[in-house]
Amino acid sequence: MDDAFKSPSRRAFLAGSVATLAGSVAGNASAADADPLITEVQDWASVTGVGVDETPYGLPIEFEKDVIRRNVPWLTADSISSINFTPIHALEGTITPQGCAFERHHSGAIEMRKDEFRLMINGLVDQELVFSYEDLERFPRENHVYFCECAANTGMEWAGAQLNGAQFTHGMIHNMEYTGVPLRALLQEAGLNAAGDLKDKWVYVEGADASSNGRSIPMEKALDDVLVAFNANGEALRKEHGYPVRLVVPGWEGNMWVKWLRRIEVADAAVESREETSKYTDVLEDGTARKWTWVMDAKSIITSPSPQTPITHGPGPMVISGLAWSGHGKITRVDVSKDGGMSWETARLGKQGDKKALTRFYLDTQWDGSEMLLQARAIDDTGYVQPTKDQLRELRGENSVYHNNCIQTWYVNAEGKAENVEVS
Amino acid sequence: MDDAFKSPSRRAFLAGSVATLAGSVAGNASAADADPLITEVQDWASVTGVGVDETPYGLPIEFEKDVIRRNVPWLTADSISSINFTPIHALEGTITPQGCAFERHHSGAIEMRKDEFRLMINGLVDQELVFSYEDLERFPRENHVYFCECAANTGMEWAGAQLNGAQFTHGMIHNMEYTGVPLRALLQEAGLNAAGDLKDKWVYVEGADASSNGRSIPMEKALDDVLVAFNANGEALRKEHGYPVRLVVPGWEGNMWVKWLRRIEVADAAVESREETSKYTDVLEDGTARKWTWVMDAKSIITSPSPQTPITHGPGPMVISGLAWSGHGKITRVDVSKDGGMSWETARLGKQGDKKALTRFYLDTQWDGSEMLLQARAIDDTGYVQPTKDQLRELRGENSVYHNNCIQTWYVNAEGKAENVEVS
Repeated sequence: MDDAFKSPSRRAFLAGSVATLAGSVAGNASAADADPLITEVQDWASVTGVGVDETPYGLPIEFEKDVIRRNVPWLTADSISSINFTPIHALEGTITPQGCAFERHHSGAIEMRKDEFRLMINGLVDQELVFSYEDLERFPRENHVYFCECAANTGMEWAGAQLNGAQFTHGMIHNMEYTGVPLRALLQEAGLNAAGDLKDKWVYVEGADASSNGRSIPMEKALDDVLVAFNANGEALRKEHGYPVRLVVPGWEGNMWVKWLRRIEVADAAVESREETSKYTDVLEDGTARKWTWVMDAKSIITSPSPQTPITHGPGPMVISGLAWSGHGKITRVDVSKDGGMSWETARLGKQGDKKALTRFYLDTQWDGSEMLLQARAIDDTGYVQPTKDQLRELRGENSVYHNNCIQTWYVNAEGKAENVEVS
Repeated sequence: MDDAFKSPSRRAFLAGSVATLAGSVAGNASAADADPLITEVQDWASVTGVGVDETPYGLPIEFEKDVIRRNVPWLTADSISSINFTPIHALEGTITPQGCAFERHHSGAIEMRKDEFRLMINGLVDQELVFSYEDLERFPRENHVYFCECAANTGMEWAGAQLNGAQFTHGMIHNMEYTGVPLRALLQEAGLNAAGDLKDKWVYVEGADASSNGRSIPMEKALDDVLVAFNANGEALRKEHGYPVRLVVPGWEGNMWVKWLRRIEVADAAVESREETSKYTDVLEDGTARKWTWVMDAKSIITSPSPQTPITHGPGPMVISGLAWSGHGKITRVDVSKDGGMSWETARLGKQGDKKALTRFYLDTQWDGSEMLLQARAIDDTGYVQPTKDQLRELRGENSVYHNNCIQTWYVNAEGKAENVEVS
């Protein structure tokens, strides 16, 4: 507050770019002719607008109709097993609205009423139990903002710069405020004495849809921060996000966030289901696979400018905006390079991000109108630094699909247009 | 983590309420007959669900079709000047989705394209300026979660318990993550030297709609935390929330959060416009009015149980859930009473709320099945305690409409049904 009072003088930040009133309106009798917008403004002010109650649930204005989830048709054979990507190139801040939040389904989205929901906990427990939706609502609940990233996010980039847009290279992610009951509380309700030494035990979780999408989770994680969630961003989960109940496995790959949750079995070993063996493992150069690669490592992406969001102004002040996240904890720093990683500047974090949640970063900078090779690299509170694509390939070869968290490069030309490129 | 491992034994929290597997399925051959839901679960698992790309922007599942904004028909003469209330009784956590977030408009909602947007800063500045939307995007931006509450929220309660539902008594509020440019930065761009002593100066802000909804804001607030915002919850503002640009005036009454922002005039006095004289002032018992009552004082409401959200289970564990907020800062404590204010228990805060943002609170308690007079009272970090209705009437009489932040009472009967009542 005091600082603002101390520096009230004109900074001329956009001097020569923002229109002065003398030039555009007041001092020029023909301004309205020169700028048809001036007349239009008067129209809004002289007639009433439209009522707001014509739709039962509010939707974006028609001018934003391109800001929607999109899929990549060749990626899956059928929409019954498909992926819809978040339009991250067009979003700001950190929260993803449910209506345009990434979703992946393996056998369509099912429609289950709350009163049809049942969650069974069975296996190595003192008392096998079946919970109704109403039962869940009687346990103490928590609220947390977490990101959910598909293990395959950026997976197409192993083989080179293939998809031209942040929505498609990095849009298998969303970030929402979840409300739910800690899985710990439900496991304790069933009783874990029968499980013996918990440190060696697992839970096997599955959904009510035809894919069942069964996954094994070590007991240590199950008792830590996993939520049995029923709301996202305040309201009920959307159908495609697992209504009425999904699992939230903070920081871990999205496939484990089982939707339409129906069963949790306490077992003394991992099930090694199809979803965790033939899929969601990383095939290395020698044909062997990395196993149990659940945590999503630190990663970042510049969302603007990017191929779908070109620079539309001339040289001068510009904002480079992006997202960073880590499945291990908090983002502590993000660096931005304009020259393909030769030199780096530290970005400003929009707001201290929550643990295992998206953090928005900004580089408030000047564009001189020349070409750029834009990159961002994230650093988390474990000290981990996001690797380059070369570093990742050196470690893991090029056979992988999953867990590509390498630094992304956008080439921006002198016209401000951006494209997906590789640098070495 | 360690604590969880140390206490894995069965707590039997819902003992006798949650179904045991032996009783409901495994041990009983006729379980499927007794509970038709068991069969239905198998149906979901044996057929594929529906694809997800059939809508351009995702909407809530049909089973949640009642969770929408609603108006109170007798409150305004016409939908052109109307209020649509957030369904807070059905929401959880803290974020309000834009699609069901409270909105108030005085002459309908206008439809302005980003390239038609102009914001003029004029009056006592060094250089009067006109900003385009693209100009705004070039200034350093910030992200903050703030509540926006209409000054008239709960206003109908001055005269008694009139509306039966938290949506209608307290639903003129929402809480979103805003992205925008500090107004301070734009004022500095225009230069404030001409304004002389800033501490006596004002800005007059108005919208592009026919109401213009002009309001005066003291310079100290304008240079503090006011945002010129273009996104909410990550995406563009919805039409009814002022697309493409609205003012965000944290902690202050919603009427000042001018939508479809078009002009900011730096002046040496308040304009005393219709919106801040004939309206949005509080008429006291003696006919005089309180002036400049901008800050929304600490307030809270139990959202569940409430008249629209009855208790549907029997005695035993239950969660009392609610919202608290303060325009002065953070919520530090919320108390809940089951006996109309005779005795109080301290609630658990779902997550430390942000400054001038909604905080979710919970009382994890036992219901003995008897009647309750439920109340919540909020305390903020200035030490202010939310008053009773009697205390507020004593101070301000019963002629007011605006700024009613009194403690609300729900009477809950032995069947779990709730209604809006008054206690003295």
